[in-house]
Amino acid sequence: MLNGKGGSLSGRTARRRVLRITLPDNGRPGDTAARADFLAGEEPLGISVDGTALTMTMRTPGDDLELAAGFLVSEAVIRSPADIAEIKLCDGTACGHADHDGMGNIADVTLAPGATVTPGARRNFLTTSACGVCGKTSIEDICVLPHAPLAADPARFAPDMLAVLPDRLRDAQRVFSRTGGLHAAGLFTADGELIAIREDVGRHNAVDKAVGWALLDDRLPLAGHVLLVSGRASFELVQKAVLAGIPLLAAVSAPSSLAVDLAEEAGLTLVGFLRGPSMNVYTGAHRLSA
Amino acid sequence: MLNGKGGSLSGRTARRRVLRITLPDNGRPGDTAARADFLAGEEPLGISVDGTALTMTMRTPGDDLELAAGFLVSEAVIRSPADIAEIKLCDGTACGHADHDGMGNIADVTLAPGATVTPGARRNFLTTSACGVCGKTSIEDICVLPHAPLAADPARFAPDMLAVLPDRLRDAQRVFSRTGGLHAAGLFTADGELIAIREDVGRHNAVDKAVGWALLDDRLPLAGHVLLVSGRASFELVQKAVLAGIPLLAAVSAPSSLAVDLAEEAGLTLVGFLRGPSMNVYTGAHRLSA
Repeated sequence: MLNGKGGSLSGRTARRRVLRITLPDNGRPGDTAARADFLAGEEPLGISVDGTALTMTMRTPGDDLELAAGFLVSEAVIRSPADIAEIKLCDGTACGHADHDGMGNIADVTLAPGATVTPGARRNFLTTSACGVCGKTSIEDICVLPHAPLAADPARFAPDMLAVLPDRLRDAQRVFSRTGGLHAAGLFTADGELIAIREDVGRHNAVDKAVGWALLDDRLPLAGHVLLVSGRASFELVQKAVLAGIPLLAAVSAPSSLAVDLAEEAGLTLVGFLRGPSMNVYTGAHRLSA
Repeated sequence: MLNGKGGSLSGRTARRRVLRITLPDNGRPGDTAARADFLAGEEPLGISVDGTALTMTMRTPGDDLELAAGFLVSEAVIRSPADIAEIKLCDGTACGHADHDGMGNIADVTLAPGATVTPGARRNFLTTSACGVCGKTSIEDICVLPHAPLAADPARFAPDMLAVLPDRLRDAQRVFSRTGGLHAAGLFTADGELIAIREDVGRHNAVDKAVGWALLDDRLPLAGHVLLVSGRASFELVQKAVLAGIPLLAAVSAPSSLAVDLAEEAGLTLVGFLRGPSMNVYTGAHRLSA
């Protein structure tokens, strides 16, 4: 039924010619050299549900089915692998998309008959794809409610465990060392064990890929787990963590104001500036056992 | 007619309580201290054209009209201030958006009668808002063509001028020093003079704000100018530079493969990893005078 393999690895990086210019500096002479360089791959992926095109995202190829599945979790369309009858990559022709060039850049999802969709289902998707309309500022109006309140998650996390996670994430970023251009999202147990890492040119996509992996592996909700992102924590990333049932979101950089507000409301523990031996805890500090 | 002031400054940063945890390190004792911290503001902005809601973006409040104007340039809907009859922030009630809470988070644009819209106009917007459909990989299919080919721009740029721009951008990031959470986009002359800097939690928004400022100040196309972004260079950022007529896009971090491909096709000079005395030139190296 499910095919969790995702797309090919071939588009993750791409070779391009580059001219490296080094200026004279502190007595050292300057230099200009042509060479080949590996860049992060970026291509569009269309996501289609029950034959209807839902969205297009610019993503790094690879783990495409996980990306599509995670996107649908983040939009509260699905919450278990049983909600999916079929998920596959297609070339456009087989699923009725004309004018497609056959590169397999469509993820085609068929929902299971009678799939239980949560009460808030598709609301967020509608606000973004039907285009906002009114610029509401109330959190209730722009986010999908979690199906299980995170406040009930009794997990506790040790700060010295959290402190080592950024290094573990970086060590696991195989692609990063080649391109320097990819965001990473890592899922960890409460003991700090890395169970999944996904990368993308878009940080939202990296999180969707990790969450989609968890869905397809029937691990949702991810109670007692940590999601670590390599960049900042936005409102949308908090929403994705909440919908995946993750009680702690940690970011290497800063959160936004709305990220903190949503985390507070959803009972998520939000950690920012997780660097070296220090970190900022913005919400849910009761989960940080000293 | 035009009101280039943008929104209020009040939402750019927001105070939130934070618990700062410092672990014991090299013999120094650990510490936990509660304090107030300034975070980057994040709120939704709806963009409406001729009464139709086009999109919603999560942005840092401020320069909202510039953001809306720049977004419409990036989507090839407009290309001169004469294309705009009126642009204003509204509370929703006056422009027919019910259910709005009156916070002024809608930018309402009325196009000028007979505004000349470019041949490719709204194509990219349609592919994103009508949701992709087919995940095309051909650049021609997913981007809006520039109204003037950049290849004709005779501007030349000195590498040692470029090398100092990241410091100038950082020095000008007033907000950055308070939150650590904002992307920046800076417009520079060929001599390295900073003429505009805009910030946002979203890097696309920062560029839209800078381009929107230029549009409202009747400076488009920005022939002979440099756009510097604080992060990576994606396909979308290249597209925004091309549509604003900017011949050189520089990024502090890496470009994606598709960013390089579009830059090559559009005749844009693309510089990445602009750090200290070195830089990578991916396309249009002829504009880099030694």
